[in-house]
Amino acid sequence: MSYAQLQRVMRRSADLASASSILNWDQETYMPEGGVAARAEQLATLSSLHHETLTGSDVQLLVDSVGDWIADCSETERRIVEKFVRDYTRTVKLPADLVEDQARTAALAQDAWKRARQASDFSLFQPLLERTVELKRREADIVGYDSHPYDALLDVFEPRMTVETLTPVFEELREGTVALLDDISAASNSVSDDVLHRHYPANAQIAFATDVVKALGFDFTCGRVDLSAHPFCTTFDVTDVRLTTRIRENDLRSCLFGLIHEAGHGMYEQGVNPRYSGTAAAQGASMGIHESQSLFWENSIARSPEFWSWCYPRLRAAFPGVLDDVSGHDFFKAINRIVPSLNRVESDEVTYNLHIIVRFEIERDLIAGTMSVADIPHVWNAKMKALLGVVPPNDAEGCLQDVHWSFGGIGYFPSYTLGKLYAAMEWTAMQEAIPDVRHQVERGEFTAIREWLRTNIHDVGSSELPATIITRVTGRSLTAADFLANIRRRAQLVYGI
Amino acid sequence: MSYAQLQRVMRRSADLASASSILNWDQETYMPEGGVAARAEQLATLSSLHHETLTGSDVQLLVDSVGDWIADCSETERRIVEKFVRDYTRTVKLPADLVEDQARTAALAQDAWKRARQASDFSLFQPLLERTVELKRREADIVGYDSHPYDALLDVFEPRMTVETLTPVFEELREGTVALLDDISAASNSVSDDVLHRHYPANAQIAFATDVVKALGFDFTCGRVDLSAHPFCTTFDVTDVRLTTRIRENDLRSCLFGLIHEAGHGMYEQGVNPRYSGTAAAQGASMGIHESQSLFWENSIARSPEFWSWCYPRLRAAFPGVLDDVSGHDFFKAINRIVPSLNRVESDEVTYNLHIIVRFEIERDLIAGTMSVADIPHVWNAKMKALLGVVPPNDAEGCLQDVHWSFGGIGYFPSYTLGKLYAAMEWTAMQEAIPDVRHQVERGEFTAIREWLRTNIHDVGSSELPATIITRVTGRSLTAADFLANIRRRAQLVYGI
Repeated sequence: MSYAQLQRVMRRSADLASASSILNWDQETYMPEGGVAARAEQLATLSSLHHETLTGSDVQLLVDSVGDWIADCSETERRIVEKFVRDYTRTVKLPADLVEDQARTAALAQDAWKRARQASDFSLFQPLLERTVELKRREADIVGYDSHPYDALLDVFEPRMTVETLTPVFEELREGTVALLDDISAASNSVSDDVLHRHYPANAQIAFATDVVKALGFDFTCGRVDLSAHPFCTTFDVTDVRLTTRIRENDLRSCLFGLIHEAGHGMYEQGVNPRYSGTAAAQGASMGIHESQSLFWENSIARSPEFWSWCYPRLRAAFPGVLDDVSGHDFFKAINRIVPSLNRVESDEVTYNLHIIVRFEIERDLIAGTMSVADIPHVWNAKMKALLGVVPPNDAEGCLQDVHWSFGGIGYFPSYTLGKLYAAMEWTAMQEAIPDVRHQVERGEFTAIREWLRTNIHDVGSSELPATIITRVTGRSLTAADFLANIRRRAQLVYGI
Repeated sequence: MSYAQLQRVMRRSADLASASSILNWDQETYMPEGGVAARAEQLATLSSLHHETLTGSDVQLLVDSVGDWIADCSETERRIVEKFVRDYTRTVKLPADLVEDQARTAALAQDAWKRARQASDFSLFQPLLERTVELKRREADIVGYDSHPYDALLDVFEPRMTVETLTPVFEELREGTVALLDDISAASNSVSDDVLHRHYPANAQIAFATDVVKALGFDFTCGRVDLSAHPFCTTFDVTDVRLTTRIRENDLRSCLFGLIHEAGHGMYEQGVNPRYSGTAAAQGASMGIHESQSLFWENSIARSPEFWSWCYPRLRAAFPGVLDDVSGHDFFKAINRIVPSLNRVESDEVTYNLHIIVRFEIERDLIAGTMSVADIPHVWNAKMKALLGVVPPNDAEGCLQDVHWSFGGIGYFPSYTLGKLYAAMEWTAMQEAIPDVRHQVERGEFTAIREWLRTNIHDVGSSELPATIITRVTGRSLTAADFLANIRRRAQLVYGI
């Protein structure tokens, strides 16, 4: 038994995971509609082989005897082994038929979700979502948990995170957000974002957004950009990272901020030290840390006044004539307008977390078994009204807007808000480490920022736990304080409160 | 032991093969350059898993006991089992390390070939081609053969075909071709194809070619078209067939005829009876039969006067103004111009086979060990001069023009010429079965043609051997006579000989 043997297992596992990612990427970007059933079978087979690879008796022997051979490992290898054993412990609990069923259901559910969203008819998605929830509840029971079954699903995306830890932080955040929204609605200053809804031709949008993420530092020799119904980032290797975005000709934000967000994920994946390639530690540390990278670029950088001082003349040039009558400051205000809306992805930095709280509560209750899938449209609309004061006119703009549930990503949504809180804490630390960082952004210089993120966060991949990384980088543990301070400062610039 | 057990093995095998095809397709169409090494690893892993799936002790037991359980099979199942056992017998002879080495070498060699072709420098490709040939010679020795090691490689693409069978047919073809070329060069009538080299904008080319293959019957709900360095067709399932083509703005033929050719392959794959999906009989019967489909559409149909009588007004409309001064007959002559040239893909229907003979002889000698890879550029040029009277000015236009060797496709080239001979025999049979077929083409009606091909050739997949199909459909065995008669008739229309 030795590390070299484990390395072969991890290599095969990584290659199978990458193959599945490539098949998924193709399904979302280019696959003809007729191919959906065959793709579900192919993904189920790969998933099943992946599970077999990770649960063979040879792997069990390696894990059981780890105490005998880990002493011969380097420090890097030791961290990889620890990560592997953490993942393994969860994986071996899941029976092969459950894993295969989840993969097949996910492929079919993604197709059903697309059709349901197009028809704005939740009932087309409901049976497959019911099956998804049922399989997830079975997964939680099998994996086990201390206090809440949802913790077993949270752990996949944010290792060691629990409902108990989230609750007070989400409460602090909700209170701070509501207080800020009250101040804004009391402000005399009103902000319009009409300028974002002028006509922006699709080709120019994708070209401009691509130029921007290239400037930020996404490496196109090891990545590319395509279109899909919902923006995403997927990694086939540190050398091959794919981003997607979507374009709406009457909304400048969708393509641009969508792509900047995904490029934040992509730069993280491209920045992991190649020594982790083909190992259990090759990906980001957690979805929360991942979101801290995408949201760092999307909000801390690309919604700052400094960024637009550099970027606005470029935007004007990319859409000749369209923005001649709009000052840079008015544009900056438009993209920082705070107003409760229906759509999570296109919502503002402040109300966004309220969207997450809606989803978090629904997921938590579905998994606890205190709510049924059939109730989702009704509960969704009620919570939207209570938290944001708006009600979706139909399911497409309501509970069918997100792709996550269709691929079984229950437990994922809290990561977005965790990402915002982490990103704000990272921004505080970065400003201490690079005192002129805001001036660099003003000059369109992003290299030092990307390198700081790479050195401090990307490099270790998932060889450290998320809480370890945050404590190492910021010197503190999870708090909503930095985020609340940042959005208040931004709101002061925009609303003069 | 039962058919159901074999079915599970075949399903997994088919899914792994499809996954590899998707990874290969992505590599050729969209993958960023940095991804090549990781892709080679991923493909090697899938290939290795595929080999393990097909060579497990459970499969050996199934094959060994086939006599006990085949009596319970339906006629369809029996044919599938026979095909599986044929493939299995070859596969089990190949050791896993050879299979994995070939997959890894192929991925790296494809990248090296691209760079070599771009730099027009054979030496960049040579080391990986040497490795490829070495592995193929090892494969031939392991698989075994009666009279010539090349037979062992031919058999992969054209089951039961041998150097001994090919030699007299290729000789008859060479003689008939040379006689026809002599008559053409003695004719007073000269033909220009300048009109094909006017400026044809890329976007209009791909749109027009896509419309044409849609009219011929390629199903876009179960397939799509992309661009790649070299046109190809790849199948992920009967419901998901991908075509690629390439565009040259100063050459109308490259995109249009390239895509019609690949659509011929694609319609074959889409036409296989779905009852063979996920089994050993799901693909075309052989590369020769496959080429008979692509070449049938490319030459028998899309180079006929009847086709252009329907298509020419459409072509003119797709490129406004470009062809106003060109008559339909002059255009027909241009696309049927016969002149020895450097490039196989863009060569005419008649001299094409001489290109194949060059490659066939080189492959045969490389595999026999009577020629070295280092000699290819020199030998290639000498044979081109001897057979076609032209010499490539550089390797890019010479021995680096084809993708085949880069993926280890040695033994493939003769399939193209076999395809021409089969296609001509099929065209004879079809004209007997559908007496007004030429008039249908003239009216742009292709449904009866596609259905005849589907019923007689596509439907059985590879549940019949190629020679069986040809004999069943045409009532005769392989001959060059139909092909030689067809090209002479066409040359009469074009050159008035």
